[in-house]
Amino acid sequence: MQSCAKSWRVVISRSMKACAPYRNISNKGDVFKKLKRSAANVRCMGTSQVLWSRKIERILPRHDDFSERHIGPGDKEKREMLTTLGLEDVLHLCLITTGENEILDSLQKIASRNKMWRSYIGMGYYNCSVPPVIQRNLLENSGWVTQYTPYQPEVAQGRLESLLNYQTMVCDITGMAVANASLLDEGTAAAEAMQLCNRLIDFSGKDVSGVLFQYPDTEGRVEDFTALVDRAHKGGALACCATDLLALCVLRPPGEFGVDIALGSSQRFGVPLCYGGPHAAFFAVKENLVRMMPGRMVGVTRDAAGKEALLANMAAMYALYHGPQGLKHIAERTHNATLILAEGKLFNSWLKRAGHKLQHENFFDTLKINCGVAGKDILEKASRREINLRLGVSLDETVTERDLDDLLWIFGCESSAELIAEKMSERTKGLLASPFKRTSKFLTHPVFNSYHSETNIVRYMKRLENKDISLVHSMIPLGSCTMKLNSSSELMPITWREFANIHPFVPLDQAEGYQQLFRQLERDLCEITGYDKISFQPNRQVSSSDKLWGCVSIYAFCLVDTLSGSLAYCTLGQEPFEAIFELCCAEAGGLHDAIDFSLSRSGAQGEYAGLAAIKAYLNSKGESHRTVCLIPKSAHGTNPASAQMAGMKVQVVEVDKDGNIDVSHLKAMVDKHKTNLAAIMITYPSTNGVFEENVSEVGLCRPGDYGSDVSHLNLHKTFCIPHGGGGPGMGPIGVKQHLAPFLPSHPVMMGSKGLAHATEVAILNANYMAKRLENHYKILFRGSKGFVAHEFILDVRPFKKSANIEAVDVAKRLQDYGFHAPTMSWPVAGTLMIEPTESEDKAELDRFCDSLLAIRQEIADIEEGRMDSRVNPLKMAPHSLASITSTTWDRPYSREYAAFPMPFVRPETKFWPTISRIDDIYGDQHLVCTCPPMDVYESPYEERASS
Amino acid sequence: MQSCAKSWRVVISRSMKACAPYRNISNKGDVFKKLKRSAANVRCMGTSQVLWSRKIERILPRHDDFSERHIGPGDKEKREMLTTLGLEDVLHLCLITTGENEILDSLQKIASRNKMWRSYIGMGYYNCSVPPVIQRNLLENSGWVTQYTPYQPEVAQGRLESLLNYQTMVCDITGMAVANASLLDEGTAAAEAMQLCNRLIDFSGKDVSGVLFQYPDTEGRVEDFTALVDRAHKGGALACCATDLLALCVLRPPGEFGVDIALGSSQRFGVPLCYGGPHAAFFAVKENLVRMMPGRMVGVTRDAAGKEALLANMAAMYALYHGPQGLKHIAERTHNATLILAEGKLFNSWLKRAGHKLQHENFFDTLKINCGVAGKDILEKASRREINLRLGVSLDETVTERDLDDLLWIFGCESSAELIAEKMSERTKGLLASPFKRTSKFLTHPVFNSYHSETNIVRYMKRLENKDISLVHSMIPLGSCTMKLNSSSELMPITWREFANIHPFVPLDQAEGYQQLFRQLERDLCEITGYDKISFQPNRQVSSSDKLWGCVSIYAFCLVDTLSGSLAYCTLGQEPFEAIFELCCAEAGGLHDAIDFSLSRSGAQGEYAGLAAIKAYLNSKGESHRTVCLIPKSAHGTNPASAQMAGMKVQVVEVDKDGNIDVSHLKAMVDKHKTNLAAIMITYPSTNGVFEENVSEVGLCRPGDYGSDVSHLNLHKTFCIPHGGGGPGMGPIGVKQHLAPFLPSHPVMMGSKGLAHATEVAILNANYMAKRLENHYKILFRGSKGFVAHEFILDVRPFKKSANIEAVDVAKRLQDYGFHAPTMSWPVAGTLMIEPTESEDKAELDRFCDSLLAIRQEIADIEEGRMDSRVNPLKMAPHSLASITSTTWDRPYSREYAAFPMPFVRPETKFWPTISRIDDIYGDQHLVCTCPPMDVYESPYEERASS
Repeated sequence: MQSCAKSWRVVISRSMKACAPYRNISNKGDVFKKLKRSAANVRCMGTSQVLWSRKIERILPRHDDFSERHIGPGDKEKREMLTTLGLEDVLHLCLITTGENEILDSLQKIASRNKMWRSYIGMGYYNCSVPPVIQRNLLENSGWVTQYTPYQPEVAQGRLESLLNYQTMVCDITGMAVANASLLDEGTAAAEAMQLCNRLIDFSGKDVSGVLFQYPDTEGRVEDFTALVDRAHKGGALACCATDLLALCVLRPPGEFGVDIALGSSQRFGVPLCYGGPHAAFFAVKENLVRMMPGRMVGVTRDAAGKEALLANMAAMYALYHGPQGLKHIAERTHNATLILAEGKLFNSWLKRAGHKLQHENFFDTLKINCGVAGKDILEKASRREINLRLGVSLDETVTERDLDDLLWIFGCESSAELIAEKMSERTKGLLASPFKRTSKFLTHPVFNSYHSETNIVRYMKRLENKDISLVHSMIPLGSCTMKLNSSSELMPITWREFANIHPFVPLDQAEGYQQLFRQLERDLCEITGYDKISFQPNRQVSSSDKLWGCVSIYAFCLVDTLSGSLAYCTLGQEPFEAIFELCCAEAGGLHDAIDFSLSRSGAQGEYAGLAAIKAYLNSKGESHRTVCLIPKSAHGTNPASAQMAGMKVQVVEVDKDGNIDVSHLKAMVDKHKTNLAAIMITYPSTNGVFEENVSEVGLCRPGDYGSDVSHLNLHKTFCIPHGGGGPGMGPIGVKQHLAPFLPSHPVMMGSKGLAHATEVAILNANYMAKRLENHYKILFRGSKGFVAHEFILDVRPFKKSANIEAVDVAKRLQDYGFHAPTMSWPVAGTLMIEPTESEDKAELDRFCDSLLAIRQEIADIEEGRMDSRVNPLKMAPHSLASITSTTWDRPYSREYAAFPMPFVRPETKFWPTISRIDDIYGDQHLVCTCPPMDVYESPYEERASS
Repeated sequence: MQSCAKSWRVVISRSMKACAPYRNISNKGDVFKKLKRSAANVRCMGTSQVLWSRKIERILPRHDDFSERHIGPGDKEKREMLTTLGLEDVLHLCLITTGENEILDSLQKIASRNKMWRSYIGMGYYNCSVPPVIQRNLLENSGWVTQYTPYQPEVAQGRLESLLNYQTMVCDITGMAVANASLLDEGTAAAEAMQLCNRLIDFSGKDVSGVLFQYPDTEGRVEDFTALVDRAHKGGALACCATDLLALCVLRPPGEFGVDIALGSSQRFGVPLCYGGPHAAFFAVKENLVRMMPGRMVGVTRDAAGKEALLANMAAMYALYHGPQGLKHIAERTHNATLILAEGKLFNSWLKRAGHKLQHENFFDTLKINCGVAGKDILEKASRREINLRLGVSLDETVTERDLDDLLWIFGCESSAELIAEKMSERTKGLLASPFKRTSKFLTHPVFNSYHSETNIVRYMKRLENKDISLVHSMIPLGSCTMKLNSSSELMPITWREFANIHPFVPLDQAEGYQQLFRQLERDLCEITGYDKISFQPNRQVSSSDKLWGCVSIYAFCLVDTLSGSLAYCTLGQEPFEAIFELCCAEAGGLHDAIDFSLSRSGAQGEYAGLAAIKAYLNSKGESHRTVCLIPKSAHGTNPASAQMAGMKVQVVEVDKDGNIDVSHLKAMVDKHKTNLAAIMITYPSTNGVFEENVSEVGLCRPGDYGSDVSHLNLHKTFCIPHGGGGPGMGPIGVKQHLAPFLPSHPVMMGSKGLAHATEVAILNANYMAKRLENHYKILFRGSKGFVAHEFILDVRPFKKSANIEAVDVAKRLQDYGFHAPTMSWPVAGTLMIEPTESEDKAELDRFCDSLLAIRQEIADIEEGRMDSRVNPLKMAPHSLASITSTTWDRPYSREYAAFPMPFVRPETKFWPTISRIDDIYGDQHLVCTCPPMDVYESPYEERASS
């Protein structure tokens, strides 16, 4: 049985009753044929009917099967769908009965291996008190965690308002003019800042485009950078300030001394440490730089936003809950605690007596101390109190008197915090008595001054939540984005304190729980992909990796194998396991052992890290001239940007009419650029929703086995990482041995395991929908056997001519039916791309298809003259409640037809777009990206009838 | 400082700067005078301005103050409200700055003292797997936890549907005709069943009214009770069956062998053990007994429901999630595990060889074993594996193969579960091969067959949640019911496994965390009330108490004293601390040392337990003739029912025009009944919303100090126990020493601590509202100084004559304004009773007052002929979305006026009643209390446009 695990096979049960090799299936048609053949041997089985090998498993089967709950359609529904597709049966793989409770129990054990010391390490990561009300009602609430990026503003007003709050908060606290709605992390923000400087500079005779400084810096120092900023400006360079939101609540903000770009992490505003992330970064600029700003911005009527929306929203809610007074209070408290520790220096007390001296005069929360005694002794004493620190201390809002006493003891002070405090002069006010003191007000808008009680902020969060369509309402069928419900079991461990409260730089032996998860994940991914090493650090500057979100999720899929001691492998070689196999490998003949490179469909960070590794490798070989990166039109949209950022020149490869890579053009391009070729990036399955038939000979198996050197894996999908209104993603990259030295950090080996049932159903769902729609809409690309992959494209372009209807009209009209729009105009302009995922059941697919069919009928009404071509339900969509309930109604269709176009759209359960169609262009041209005054928010009631 | 803690004083800061004795303030007017006097010394202070004694507390104050977050109005608002009331200032008591994080940390430590052994004890409590999706989205979701009992069906359709599911589930599984929407626990259900039997019997010549048997019984035995049922019926008695829902999934249900009443606990359907509760019980009867059924029932159009709604909803969702196949699967699995254990007996295997024998032939999940070896040895071996059991084993859905192996080892069997399973004959099917096998189908309705994937059940739960108004939407101003938001910090520990997974009968040393909470709570309550003992067991038959919900909540209030070592006491002697002091003590002169008895305003279980203790005490003194219980009209409505159930005769005491007890009538009644007087029950503050001025001389201090013998405390309110759509409450009772032996279980001593700020604001809020409304509505009762207590009554009776408007019209119209109705027609018919609680801030109070004032204007429009008296916004209220959006609209007012009557009621945030006004009488007369077929639920789509 063990040997079976090492090859790629279908395993029917734990006794390996049917280890048939399905390795070389090269496209979907074959898959279905294979499935049909298999059906003779393997019947479609429900959970309780699985063919168990051991009798005890038959009479004592698990009943909390995870994958069955995660996958929408049941057996009966699957059979109905196969019938629609004209197929006989689907290979219902032996379910690896993943017990949810067993997983959670096991994760608890792993969590308990993490040690909960107090960490005063700082360096961009601070303890913070996540307000329980925000944790419970936002972070642990699927209504906030399962929304899509707010590209459809009519059904995303909640998050947009919250992100606007975030931007306003960042502007106010930094003193800058405009801010975006978050970036991935501080390092990314710093890199973006430098890129922005570089794009702007006039290089004639100059070689410095920007200056980046920290304020306060990592050693705690607070310096006056006014002169530096002036010098930079005089030299034609921009000044960028990496800073800290909490410090700026008491410190003169960078906007007040001429800084052009302010950036940093907003983690300490109520986002758990989680061993290093995911967090959200902020990025704010002067007015004149607004059009250069990276990432997305929420304008008052603009429609786009948010990379790390979930975490940015947490930080924004933290600011709302505390308000300006509360934040200032926290900042002062943190600073005062630091002052108490520093008193020794200022008043000839303990620090001096103990032989230490402070390195810097001005500080906020961090003291760098030059020790008089051996650093080893300090650290030894610290470990006796279970405290982590550098030779320096970074304090935060959680510090207590007891903590201060412990720190004083560790540094050899015989006094107590209380005694030091009593002796402190009234004038000992630190920054507050210095020129660095902040004098300007911030967060004066009512929204930051109205929700300080739990009752109020709960209602505010609920009000925003209910304006946003999410997976708790209906299918979000976005092609290329794979929106599916994240299971509660996967989300629960995120907020366990043993995972949430670990600083990224604690000693490894305090993070054994995390290490165990990483080892398992890396082993699993390496085995699956055939790579030698996996790095989880694409978006981390320094930290040993975190990515609990992904770990826990893959863990949920893989754990049971380990627990049960079984070898239940799945069809990894047969069907591309959606997340893991949405890679490809290059087969461009000319590349051979050079750099053939594959990336996945999203996670620009991973793409960038992979490309950077390649570039470093080439440079190390003296081939720095290799800068050309070939990217087919069917690749993911982030690819060109990543290549450009990695300093490569992008060359586009054509696709044929079926959406496949035009191999002859690829070959020609390889020929043309072969001396300068650095990489080729291929997305698999392609964004066109088909399996690349030419690439697939290798692509359907382990990319690492077939000459590909780097893979970026997108674990966002099958591994159920929450989208949370826009990120966080997770992008580990896998590399072959020769590239390993160039990875951002020290990866460790992993193996691989997986499950294909989800993939199977995702493909079945997509094909079922395509089948139901094909006589009414044109399906743009298909494989040669007529099947689509896990997503497909509806070509609605012909309706422009026939009925004046465009993709956007169909998308907005779908909102009236209670659905989020599919992906619009990507990868083909004017089309709609649909991806149902495996989580949706047949009834939901049918409701969505019914809606599209009804919309097709509405289009036909226009085409055939029964409905006006300018004022019709599509052009006027979506219909908000305000428009439906107004006294006046002068449309050529009824209110009911507008709002309740199908029997399943009912008044008592309908999800309403909160506003009518957004004018994207207006917002873009009239950018207001901080909170407008008052009227957007709850205005104070007017006494009306009391007179 | 220590001594200060033992008397009742206002403490201004931790240095006891102003320990003024406020003990004898006897009514609200005095309170306000006192407050005004105090204001000279004690300024109104914000959290950060509190006068700290130690400097370190000034420069390092806490910032996560709990009470500040829990209480709605901030300082500025409070000042505005006082101005409205014509008062100068309010004594802003020194805040005991309760740090939320510190509390949660400390609770974690306490939780870790509970040991997580495996328990196979059974006896009505079973391990179960709470589906994470239900835990996260229902139990941990304030949208499900903060609704009121669904008395307003238009804004409670979600829970009503779920409770209907619960009833259907109970009917289907028990085979009975009708079921109610849950009772408190199995013991209560059994007592109710016997009461029902007793009420029905014709006692002429008969002395048996009912027969109650267990099926299966606590020793696991499954017996055939058909003959017994027949005999009972022949004797004119009813047959009651205490049974188990999971067993009945494979066992012939009681409805199929003539049982009249089936009852039991639904805990094992996905409700955590929580050391014994709260859980929900089920109660089902034959068709002919429907009108006799206790508790409430949800009819398809009927409007009332649920005592333990939250837990019943959990059980119902569990049944939906698993469906009939899943439940049967779980039942079979559990039974099979038991069969494996029992194989020794059946097939001459280990049990016999080890010298044990099974006591019963037929069993479901429980084996009673007569041990061949010493029981002590068995238990010792069990403890080595950290397993709890009786000399017998009760298995459940969580049992694994490893657990079975451990159990076999414990009982001295050398074989393994696997080997035993292999040797089991195909015919070894236990109950499934016996006449007891269930053959009838159950849960065939689509609702139990549609939501088996996580995506689907999340959407279903969300859909129901969004139909129900709860505290996450707006104020629920119910007088006498105190609806306020439960904080996340209080709710989080409930689902920690260390609290959730403890069986009530584990050895005490495994529940040290619980014991610590109980000790602290009892000590606190005893000190506050002056009683000698507190029992937490009013609603528990046998178990050592649980009541985590209450413990955690009071803990959140009290912990910081302990942590900080301070002695910050509050005005316990000054203002009735709403929850604790809503007691009273009798001062009826004639009672003296006899039985003066006080109960609180709700928690019928506590009332009953207290009365039963009194009855037992009297009987023990040979005074069983004492059966008269005096109850004033102002007492809580549950009092008479409790007294009757305890076998007492109720005599009503009149109240005067101000709502106070008519003391002369009270004295006369005491005189009249003195030889037979058993108790007097007084509610304080009275349900009329005033502080009893005559009772208050004693009532405002510790009831135990003033001759009262028993108090039932309602911790539902100030201690923030979630209402959850109707329960669970918490009702500890306190007794003087002489009654202690008659308490249901062994209480331990406690002390008392508390906080009065909440009470103060609750009273301020109520008075502010009364003030704003008093020129427009008549306020029915007030104290002699013109103030109300924490709630007040609006007299709307005059509008019946002037405008044909009744209380119900105002209540329903409030739904259009986004508010739940106040308490209707209680305690005075035709009036509305309002209780704002301390959690609501001024803006919400103002919105509510504005709504009532606007409604008053609408009434004036009718009075003055501007609006029709039959078709008007009040009579037609509430306006559902369906009615507002319909094409036809023939009302004398506009759609907007109907739906958006105030500026703050806006389309994008309005809470919509999902249906129009319910016809209560129709539903009552046309009782359909199981799920109707199909059309209430999502019906399969119809292909519409695909032709």
